[in-house]
Amino acid sequence: MRFQPALDKIPAYEAGKPIELVVREYGISPEKVLKLASNENPYGVSPKVSEVIKEAVYKMPLYPDDSYKALKDALAKTHGVDAKNVIQGNGSDQIFDFATRSVLNPGDKILQNGKTFSMYSIYAGQCGAETIQTSSELHDLNQFLDLYKKHSPKIIFICTPCNPIGDALDKSDLYTFLQKISSDTMVVLDAAYMEFGKTRDLRKEVQAADVISKFPNVLYTNTFSKIYGLGGMRIGYGIASEEMIRAFYKLRPPFNVSQLSQLAAATALSDREFVENYLKENLKEMVRYENFAKKKGLFYFESYANFITIKLDQAKLDSTQTFDTLLKEGIILRNLKSYGLNALRITIGRPEQNDRVLERLSELL
Amino acid sequence: MRFQPALDKIPAYEAGKPIELVVREYGISPEKVLKLASNENPYGVSPKVSEVIKEAVYKMPLYPDDSYKALKDALAKTHGVDAKNVIQGNGSDQIFDFATRSVLNPGDKILQNGKTFSMYSIYAGQCGAETIQTSSELHDLNQFLDLYKKHSPKIIFICTPCNPIGDALDKSDLYTFLQKISSDTMVVLDAAYMEFGKTRDLRKEVQAADVISKFPNVLYTNTFSKIYGLGGMRIGYGIASEEMIRAFYKLRPPFNVSQLSQLAAATALSDREFVENYLKENLKEMVRYENFAKKKGLFYFESYANFITIKLDQAKLDSTQTFDTLLKEGIILRNLKSYGLNALRITIGRPEQNDRVLERLSELL
Repeated sequence: MRFQPALDKIPAYEAGKPIELVVREYGISPEKVLKLASNENPYGVSPKVSEVIKEAVYKMPLYPDDSYKALKDALAKTHGVDAKNVIQGNGSDQIFDFATRSVLNPGDKILQNGKTFSMYSIYAGQCGAETIQTSSELHDLNQFLDLYKKHSPKIIFICTPCNPIGDALDKSDLYTFLQKISSDTMVVLDAAYMEFGKTRDLRKEVQAADVISKFPNVLYTNTFSKIYGLGGMRIGYGIASEEMIRAFYKLRPPFNVSQLSQLAAATALSDREFVENYLKENLKEMVRYENFAKKKGLFYFESYANFITIKLDQAKLDSTQTFDTLLKEGIILRNLKSYGLNALRITIGRPEQNDRVLERLSELL
Repeated sequence: MRFQPALDKIPAYEAGKPIELVVREYGISPEKVLKLASNENPYGVSPKVSEVIKEAVYKMPLYPDDSYKALKDALAKTHGVDAKNVIQGNGSDQIFDFATRSVLNPGDKILQNGKTFSMYSIYAGQCGAETIQTSSELHDLNQFLDLYKKHSPKIIFICTPCNPIGDALDKSDLYTFLQKISSDTMVVLDAAYMEFGKTRDLRKEVQAADVISKFPNVLYTNTFSKIYGLGGMRIGYGIASEEMIRAFYKLRPPFNVSQLSQLAAATALSDREFVENYLKENLKEMVRYENFAKKKGLFYFESYANFITIKLDQAKLDSTQTFDTLLKEGIILRNLKSYGLNALRITIGRPEQNDRVLERLSELL
């Protein structure tokens, strides 16, 4: 059988190693495994959400309300937009999938940062499109603009704050850039870490309602996997013009978000206190990693997210080696070697989790 | 912005009306609404699954083990295949999506039954492919073969037992048909209702391991939404040759099934008693609807699934009218007008649910 030739070129996505794997491969009991590899919420999920889900297990047999009215109304209210500007996804990943498939054909191009979330390029590859990227680690909007003029990409992906680096754009710089982009080019603004960014520096805040009203070619995406602690429930969303949302709806499979996931998400939006506490703790604990890196003389990227990326001293240590050593002890971090960086990305954990990681890193680095 | 022209031609999928809608629009309290519209399991889900999920809510923050090893091993064991022959989907819908996207290009064709699950055609349409269908209501394999020779479709979809009609093919007829199909043509065998079919008549049973070993171009799909009572959890799977599964993996988004969904599914496989009871009850209650139709002189399709499709007398009654009347009373059935049938499809419910439906139908029809 002849499958699409484009499939041959698609690399596999490398996810953070799951706890189950460490248990399987190294025989470590699950409660001794510490995973700070996938930027999940170390405080778990709001107790309100847990309660609601326990009470709602009887709903598992029923297909979700495919209008997702309750969730979309809650999201619309949170972001000050109309429900017609919102689409829910099986993770924000699915929104990227809708975006790429709605405009890309073989031979088309997308433009993205040199170091960024690898799924943009994979989804583009599934459509037979080519990925153009800047050579810089941090977002360099001048380089973006040069490449935009040279390559006429159909989509520009901007992740701010950016995974896996942690840098974030000032809203004013972003808006200046957006003014120079044709309204025919889709700009995907992946705001998965936006609340962490604005908690550290208000200049980093880009609001969905504002950006899509000023730039109708912008798709704003966000997720429940980070601040809301629902990574396992696969739920994200996109906010954009009605026209763009209508096009995405043509590609949306029915019931694309599970019954319990949509309920968990809608409930999570109602517990602001849980989120605020996490944001505060995250910033406090981040400083400990920064101080550690400074003391060791290691380069780190200033992070506006819930993780920190620390470069290792290439002459002395390879990140793969350090990563493997820790993995065998049941500490899962993220090795950025596949991103071309001799660096570890560490999700900021709870104080006692960070104690354990910092203690071992002090010995190893 | 210019979206794919193919999107304009894609019709919207019409799902069974959700309970939430009837509550919203007619002010009926949820406990008074009876939904027998989407072939969900009227006995809910195995109590074992409910227990496991209640205990597992603490896992919501963690991304699933993206290898889905536990679930795939359980499925492989159930079906007597290797885990490498299995792929999990966000509903079996996602498997259809992988299938269409892995081979179809604009201008290609798919072949399907005249009346069948409407998503095949929608996914094909998203790839710019055309749908060829037989003119018959029941699967007519001679007509399939004629159209296959005439149109050279890249994919043939066969749903057995078939939704929304309920008919099922004998395995021997299907195998004779498959022998005549080129190994370059993918044949998708949607077996969502297979266990109901084989419970009624063993000749209808097609086993995944057997069919894919004899016909490497066959993709066998199934779902946890029906016999396992997990429609709201969005989980299905495909079983096929390693080569086909590898191609699908290139299109699979990471974490495509939620943490709780994969756990619910793996647990559901372990409670065979729950499934057997349901299968027995379903058949017993089905007979009541058949007797009702006979008594009223209405045509019904002999059903090998968990629903029955009854045609109304066109001269006397329109299915839309009957559907609407019942909807306003809080009884949700499926109107098949959009399938070109003046018929109602009724999910076989629990005895007391069927009492309520049969009583009202006796008055109305």
